[in-house]
Amino acid sequence: MKELVFVGLGLNDEAGISLGGLEETKKADVVFIELYTNLLPEFSLNKFEAHAKKRISVLSRHDLEDDDGKVVLEAAAKGTAVLLVPGDPFVATTHVSLRIEAEKRGIKTRIVHGASAISAVIGACGLHNYKFGKTVTVPFAENASETPYNVIAQNKALGLHTLCLLDLKSDEQLFLSVNDAVKELLSVEEKRRQNVVSAKTLVVGAARVGSALPVLKADRAGQLLSYDFGGPPQSLIVPGQLHFMEIEALIQFAGAPEELRREVR
Amino acid sequence: MKELVFVGLGLNDEAGISLGGLEETKKADVVFIELYTNLLPEFSLNKFEAHAKKRISVLSRHDLEDDDGKVVLEAAAKGTAVLLVPGDPFVATTHVSLRIEAEKRGIKTRIVHGASAISAVIGACGLHNYKFGKTVTVPFAENASETPYNVIAQNKALGLHTLCLLDLKSDEQLFLSVNDAVKELLSVEEKRRQNVVSAKTLVVGAARVGSALPVLKADRAGQLLSYDFGGPPQSLIVPGQLHFMEIEALIQFAGAPEELRREVR
Repeated sequence: MKELVFVGLGLNDEAGISLGGLEETKKADVVFIELYTNLLPEFSLNKFEAHAKKRISVLSRHDLEDDDGKVVLEAAAKGTAVLLVPGDPFVATTHVSLRIEAEKRGIKTRIVHGASAISAVIGACGLHNYKFGKTVTVPFAENASETPYNVIAQNKALGLHTLCLLDLKSDEQLFLSVNDAVKELLSVEEKRRQNVVSAKTLVVGAARVGSALPVLKADRAGQLLSYDFGGPPQSLIVPGQLHFMEIEALIQFAGAPEELRREVR
Repeated sequence: MKELVFVGLGLNDEAGISLGGLEETKKADVVFIELYTNLLPEFSLNKFEAHAKKRISVLSRHDLEDDDGKVVLEAAAKGTAVLLVPGDPFVATTHVSLRIEAEKRGIKTRIVHGASAISAVIGACGLHNYKFGKTVTVPFAENASETPYNVIAQNKALGLHTLCLLDLKSDEQLFLSVNDAVKELLSVEEKRRQNVVSAKTLVVGAARVGSALPVLKADRAGQLLSYDFGGPPQSLIVPGQLHFMEIEALIQFAGAPEELRREVR
């Protein structure tokens, strides 16, 4: 069987994978893993290997991107190869070209999905998925741009919330924090003055969603500049128009200020 | 311990749950399940109970909505209760009020996330998550409205794709098909004539994503009116501006017409 199975690791640790994903891993001829497109803060490869009873090869960004996943394609041309990917395998677009290349070579591809930070963060805050507009990534300060501000402005104009993913370089242990993302947005506000994200705007920070101790905090942007969210991964939501049930949720789940109740429209 | 753990069942069958979710289920004092907010086409409760070594009470929409989840709150006030929910537990907004009520009563709540159809369908088609605007649900024909058409138009004006969830009443075994959703959109087009979804518009239908035999088909809306997608659950994507890599993906993964390559901007 020439096939390549992309298996989602879900969130946080070795227990984020689905039962079906673990079965695929056990049955495969060769198993690869990449841990750079997203961070699983409590994941232990040793524990996972023991669990799956399998040796697993760790692939770098270089292996998968510069080398176009050659090692994976070669293994899949001879049998069943599994590539383990944090979260849900195709939320990051990184592996789409590998899957296209496999199909072109007559290698069958399949996906075993996993939990994604995108639905998890939105759900954990109690916000309504269908009220989100376009998602945006906030880059590190050295690559700062006005794009996130513009996307938030565009979504807000439609009454929609914005999920801001925060840039990370897992292989270099670099992660943008909620604090720094808010700082970047406020500095664009200072130039643009369109009241998109001011110090008084309610925003929601989230850290380590999917772990046993996630931190969710909804407050004025000015307050979140210095709030201690702990370690990565982190993300930020800038709400548009909030439904009263969403406000209750933010108060109960994310410690939002109770005065918010008076601001509902 | 007074606590209520919402556990996502992920997609398709008993193997969609994460290892962590299964552990929570095994450890809980009382376990409930609801299977009406979404469809897991190959899920067997008997098999799952055998696997989890647990008796599980099935809750209806009546139990959770009309009765405000009273039975769940009572169990969680005495120990650890698990509520198993298809997909990722809070993608549907149904259970947010139950979680708020639990927190108000001093019952600790936690979430074990699962794979959601939202990220799975987008990923399976090879489309880029960050190019999606607001998600919309297409209702059954008897509740047909122009809202889905308007949301698609709004997203398209921004160059964004639209994920259309298709209405379902799992408890009555009623599911809107891709064919019928396309029909509804074309009938709005006939009135509005804004070229948002015409017979020639490329759209993507998806069925049973997360199962061993998902069906993905990208084609002109007129062609998808009669394409056989098989059983539920199904969903529909109306693309905005496609990136050339997305076009390659639709050709390879969803059998899109090759002429699409010439239409890239």
